[in-house]
Parts: sequence; structure tokens; C-alpha cells
Amino acid sequence: MNIRFYNARILTMEDYLSIIEGEVWIKGNTIVHVGKIDFEKTKNIGMTDWHREIDVKGNLLMPGFKNAHTHSGMTFLRSYADDLPLAEWLTKQIFPAEAKLSKNDIYEFTILAITEYLTSGITANFDMYLEPNAITQAAVDVGFRTVQCGSLNDFSQSIEQMEEYYLKLNECHELSSYILGFHAEYTTSRKRLEQVASLAEKYRAPVFTHNSETKEEVEGCMERYQKTPTKLFEELGIYEYGGGGFHCVYLNDEDIEIFKKRKLSVVTNSGSNTKLASGIAPIQKLINHHINVAIGTDGPASNNCLDMFREMFLTTGLAKIKEKDASVVDANQVLYMATVGGAKAMGLKDCDVLKAGKKADIIMIDLKQPNMQPLNNITKNIVYSGSKINVKMTMVNGKILYEDFKFNIGRNLDEIYEKVELLKSRII
Amino acid sequence: MNIRFYNARILTMEDYLSIIEGEVWIKGNTIVHVGKIDFEKTKNIGMTDWHREIDVKGNLLMPGFKNAHTHSGMTFLRSYADDLPLAEWLTKQIFPAEAKLSKNDIYEFTILAITEYLTSGITANFDMYLEPNAITQAAVDVGFRTVQCGSLNDFSQSIEQMEEYYLKLNECHELSSYILGFHAEYTTSRKRLEQVASLAEKYRAPVFTHNSETKEEVEGCMERYQKTPTKLFEELGIYEYGGGGFHCVYLNDEDIEIFKKRKLSVVTNSGSNTKLASGIAPIQKLINHHINVAIGTDGPASNNCLDMFREMFLTTGLAKIKEKDASVVDANQVLYMATVGGAKAMGLKDCDVLKAGKKADIIMIDLKQPNMQPLNNITKNIVYSGSKINVKMTMVNGKILYEDFKFNIGRNLDEIYEKVELLKSRII
Repeated sequence: MNIRFYNARILTMEDYLSIIEGEVWIKGNTIVHVGKIDFEKTKNIGMTDWHREIDVKGNLLMPGFKNAHTHSGMTFLRSYADDLPLAEWLTKQIFPAEAKLSKNDIYEFTILAITEYLTSGITANFDMYLEPNAITQAAVDVGFRTVQCGSLNDFSQSIEQMEEYYLKLNECHELSSYILGFHAEYTTSRKRLEQVASLAEKYRAPVFTHNSETKEEVEGCMERYQKTPTKLFEELGIYEYGGGGFHCVYLNDEDIEIFKKRKLSVVTNSGSNTKLASGIAPIQKLINHHINVAIGTDGPASNNCLDMFREMFLTTGLAKIKEKDASVVDANQVLYMATVGGAKAMGLKDCDVLKAGKKADIIMIDLKQPNMQPLNNITKNIVYSGSKINVKMTMVNGKILYEDFKFNIGRNLDEIYEKVELLKSRII
Repeated sequence: MNIRFYNARILTMEDYLSIIEGEVWIKGNTIVHVGKIDFEKTKNIGMTDWHREIDVKGNLLMPGFKNAHTHSGMTFLRSYADDLPLAEWLTKQIFPAEAKLSKNDIYEFTILAITEYLTSGITANFDMYLEPNAITQAAVDVGFRTVQCGSLNDFSQSIEQMEEYYLKLNECHELSSYILGFHAEYTTSRKRLEQVASLAEKYRAPVFTHNSETKEEVEGCMERYQKTPTKLFEELGIYEYGGGGFHCVYLNDEDIEIFKKRKLSVVTNSGSNTKLASGIAPIQKLINHHINVAIGTDGPASNNCLDMFREMFLTTGLAKIKEKDASVVDANQVLYMATVGGAKAMGLKDCDVLKAGKKADIIMIDLKQPNMQPLNNITKNIVYSGSKINVKMTMVNGKILYEDFKFNIGRNLDEIYEKVELLKSRII
């Protein structure tokens, strides 16, 4: 499909936060032009045959949000076991339910999550869950971009399986990629951690994991190894080729130095850290150390929504509370984390900004909603005032999957909901 | 208009949080039936002539949210002066801009705020701003319910003016009411505070004010009076007939005892307290003391959105962070604050629950959005996962003002936006 967007405001994110006016042209899955209309160029790239020409009416086109940490398949547990601390929530409610999951369950639960991502302008996720093949299938079937993260631990996924996923899911489809990873230090034996390090070495590949999410997690690791999780991973060689951590609420100064040295990313999960009372991540400190920060919703069982607008506000808001300073982690920094920072963490080099040659992962923000008015400062409006109601369109890989609150994913929503209710009733 | 809602799930909020299935019937501005269909009753109340019969399709009807503290007219300042601490923000950015406001400016800026309230399922606000006549006019013109709060201080509104507003705006229209109030201790001299106390005495009327929003505010009051704002107001007789405080982040134990004794309400403003780095209110402690808590967005200049879903999540989330306990201030308590608690604070005795005889201030929550699925727990879904996208309808006083993302307020939205941009450009 060749699609022309005209009368657009465009936040390319290329030169940070300036907004230009003009057009965005899409050929297949790729952006071929961004900016003022240019008839000479139109001729040169043979783009006069449009399948669709969309009047953006002064609304905003920008790169889609990257949900840099989630467990999509957990939609079935939304609002099932709330108001519990992390350890009790995991061991008493979550793990027993997950033990009953089939591939088909995870396929359908993931589809439900993807529909929610689309309503929130999320064009790619960094997904960590069971049955990676089913997850990729779900994403590919609806046209969504998914980067999966290894979820190895002592109870599921062997190192051989992870290697197999790594090789297969990085090659099988342009919407699919895979990054090495493991669940967390507290669920993974030293032997297995060493295997992860060897695999990272073998492929010179980055590794991601839950890292320092709670105080108890860090204390447990200190007891077991007399060092923090970050220091342990570093010494084992796990972070030799980059990667990063999810949550990272309790990093100490030495940890932060390791993150800096290894160019690791921190994926912050404010909604989940808030709801599970885990704490507030030191985002301003990370920025001061020039560490790449990305934003993730975490799974729907702990958040419970998959909404980047809420995460963005929480990321700036909680930092302000933590530092007792309204000027820290301003909205524009947060918008960068939610787009470019996420793409960087997830290895999506072609999906970060709006520019000719990049993949067409684009959203349209409705500036004609009351919460965006007046247009004093559009980027601050998005972070401080934005909501799912502002997502007018979500395009992934050149295809419009969501537009004016309607889905174009080859599936009927009511049928998805019915299937999820049915499958869920067997499990919980 | 006589309107029949059928095939509904109904959260009446009457017996706290049980959800029933059935119908809601509206005659004029009043609810005449809630529950199972009842043909005998239909005949008795002469309700067979429906102007509209609405198939709710299993979605949820519930009482509209009450935005229990806001400054609607400040929409013109949204995203204008962000990332500043409260004192600097107020004195350098806000007060100078406000000095230039006309009645017509405030009328139009208020209309913009009301449109946003409707998108968030808010059916009434507790508004504190300049030019109360213009605010009432705006609300009445679009059909919105507004309770105004006196905003007396040393720079605007005399005690005579406030009395005049009190008498007029409580009588002029069924959508309008007025509660005595003043801006804050730090902007109001002792003499004026004493005048407020006399007026409260004269009408045996409750009084509201900004109370203990920041640490600096309380410290300043301690220096001036050697007591906290709450203790000062209590001693002056301001709280003799009830009322309450906005924000209330820094209440000490003695303050809380006064709130309990005088049956005062706390209106919490989590979004604003977060964004201005003011701190986290002691909500769990207030609940322990059986103090009525309501929720407000505060004004769009400090929040910057007018979104009860964000406020509800923040109210529970910040409490969990503050108490380091995921079980405190659970979602259902928050839902109560956002509806019944607000109505109680605002004196809206007939707008709190869905029940025959109550005013028809009703919203429809779209449960067919991905973020509400599966239906493990509907009320927790609303608080932990809800968004403006879930507001399918907002009815105020029996009239549907917003439905399926469209407005029915006798005004065109683009015209409102243009007018606001134009008026604003004169001021900032």
C-alpha cells in the first residue's frame, strides 16, 4: 500500500522535539518522504499512485510508542489478584495459574493485549512470556511488531530452547525479533546464569532481565552472592555485549556505573512499581549518567492496563515526587524514552524516528480532543494530558491496524473477548 | 425526555460495590427506576412513552464522577508553565496571566474544561475561580452541573461579594450551587479569615479552602500563627459547620482529629501534587479515621489534564508507594471517593448514587474496550485500567451531553478551540 498523509503536524523525533508541518509518504512498509510537499521528489520516487490519501487535518504524526517491557499473555489475570505485595502475588496467584497455560491460551491472551496496545499508540512491544512461538504467531497474524525476550529460569525454558528461539524468531518474519534474557536472579540458579553468559558470548548478544525490582530482591541476592544483581551479572559476563534491566528501582551507584560502562538500558515500569508498592526508580540519576531509559507497562496482571500515556505521566510524576523537584525528568525527556529510548533498548534501529528509509510505525495523535487544547505546547500536552482517547490511528509496518477507534486486524473483537473468557475460565 | 436504558450492568454505588443487571429509567432530570424490568411499575409511573430506548449491551451504568476540586478557567494555561515548583509557578507565571482575564475569557475557558470533563465521565465539578457568574453561565449553557467554591483572598473577592454569590448562585438554577470558601491561609489575612468565619456562622454553612498543600505552606503558617492551617481555621471558627480542605498533603495527627471532629472532607489532588512535586497525601490514615475523601483533578495548569481515571489510579498508586504496602487504599475505596465521596463533599445529596428519586447524573462505561477485558473484576478494571476511552456516555441532569465520543452541548468544538486560542493569545 502507498499511503499519503497530508496537512500534518509531524514530530519526527529525529532532531529531538521540533514539530514540522507537511506530509508523510509510505511505500509498502517504509517511509519514503517526511516534510514539505515536493512534487519533483514525488515524480522521482514514482509515488503518484496512492492507495489512500489521508487528510491529517493538522493533527500530529509521530513514531509509535515502544512498550519496552511487558508480559502480554497475562491479560487473563487482569484484576484477578490485586492489592497484594509482589512476592505473595507471584507465588500464590500468578505461578499456579500460569502452570495451566497452553499455547493456544497464550496466543489468544496475547491477541487481546495487542488490541490494547493499538488503542494506546503502541507499535511494538518487548514481550517476555511463555511459548514464544505462539506469541510471534499472534503478532504476525494481526500485523503487530514484537521483540521477544528470553524468559529462562529454573522452572521453564532451557538454554538450548532459548538458543533455538533466538535463531528462529530473529529470522522467521520481519515483524519478529528475539533478544536473549532470563526471568531474574532470584528464579535462576548460578549454573543457568553462566549458561546465559556463554550464549551471550557465543552470539555477542545483549541480555535483558528483571533487575532490582524490589528491595527484597536485592537483599536476597546480597545474601546469596554478597553482591547486587547488576554486579553479579556483570561479573558473570552476562552484560558483556549490552542489554539491560527491567524495573531497576533499586540500583546503587556502582550498579549505575556498570550500566553506563556497558551501555545498558533501563526499562522503567512505573505503573507496576506503583501498584505493587515496589518503589520509585531513580530516573533523574540515570539521565544524569546518560543511561538510555525506555518505558514499559509490565504485564496486565500487575499494572493493570497497557497504556503508555499513564506510564509516561507516572515516569515524570514519580521522579518529581522522588526528587522533591518539579523540574526533573521533564515531559520531553519522557516522550523520548517512550519512543526512541524504547527502540534503542529493543534493537529496533529502523523504527525509532520518522524519516525516509525507516519502517512505517506511525501514530496519529488527535489534537482536536479537549485535553490537547489550547496548543500551548504539544509535546507537553501529550505527556501531561494525553490519553488513549487521543490515539486517532496506529500504523505498524505500513499497515493501519487501528483508526478512529476501529480495528483492522482480521479479527472481530467480541469474538476475541468471548474466547478469552472461555479459555480463562478453565485456568482461574 | 424520558429515557430507558436496558440490557445494562448497573453499579448503583448504593450498597457499595455490587453490580446488578437490569434497566435504568429517566423521567426529565430524575431517575425513576433502577433494576429488573417491572411492567407493573412501568404502568404505574406512566413510562411507556420513551423518547429514547438505549440498548446498553451489557456495558456498565454508574453514577458520574465528581471532580471535587478544580479551577476550570485555567485551561488557557495548560502546558504553558510546566516543570516549576508551586510557589514560583504561582507567582511568576499564573498570577500575572490571571490578572488579565475578562469575564468572557473565563466563560470560554470554562466551556473548554467542561468538554473535557464530559470525556472523562465527570458530571459535576467543584470549581474555584474568578468570575463565578461567568462560570455558572458556562455550566448552565452547556447543561453541566457546577458547585462553586468561594475564592476569597487578599487580592480578589470581598466578603460582601462572596455573600452575594452565595445567595445568588445557590438559587439561580438547578445546575448551580455555591459553597463558602477562600483561596488559602497564605494568601488571606487574619482579618479576612475572621470575616469568612462570621459568614459561615451567619449561614451555618461549610467552608472549603486549599489546606496544607505543601510543606512550605504549613511552615509559613506555623511561623505566622504558631499553628497549622487546620488548627488556625478551627480556632477561628471557620470549620464550625463543616467543609474541608483541598490537597491536605501535610496534615498532622491533630489536624486529622479536627477533620474527624468537624466531619470535614479531604479532597485529594494526586495528579497536581505529583506534577508540582508537592508530596503524597496520607489517604490510608484518613480512611483509618473515617474521614470522607473526595478526588479532584485540580486545574489544568497544574495537572495538566482533567481526567478522573488518572486521578483514581494515582490515588491508590501513590498511597501504596507511601505506605510501602500494595494492599492499602484499594480500587473499590477509590471508586467510592470519586463518586459518593465527591457528592458528599460538594453537597450534592441527590447526585451520589443510582436510585429512584435521585438526579440522573449517569455515565456508561464501555466494557467492550480491550482494557476492560476479561471481566474478572469490573470495579477494579475501572480504577486500575480505565481511561477516557471507556466513557461511552455522559448524562447530566437527565440530558445526554456526550455519547460515542460526540458532544451534544449546543456548541461546535472547533469553534470553542478557535475562540480559546484567540482569547488566550491576548493574555499569554
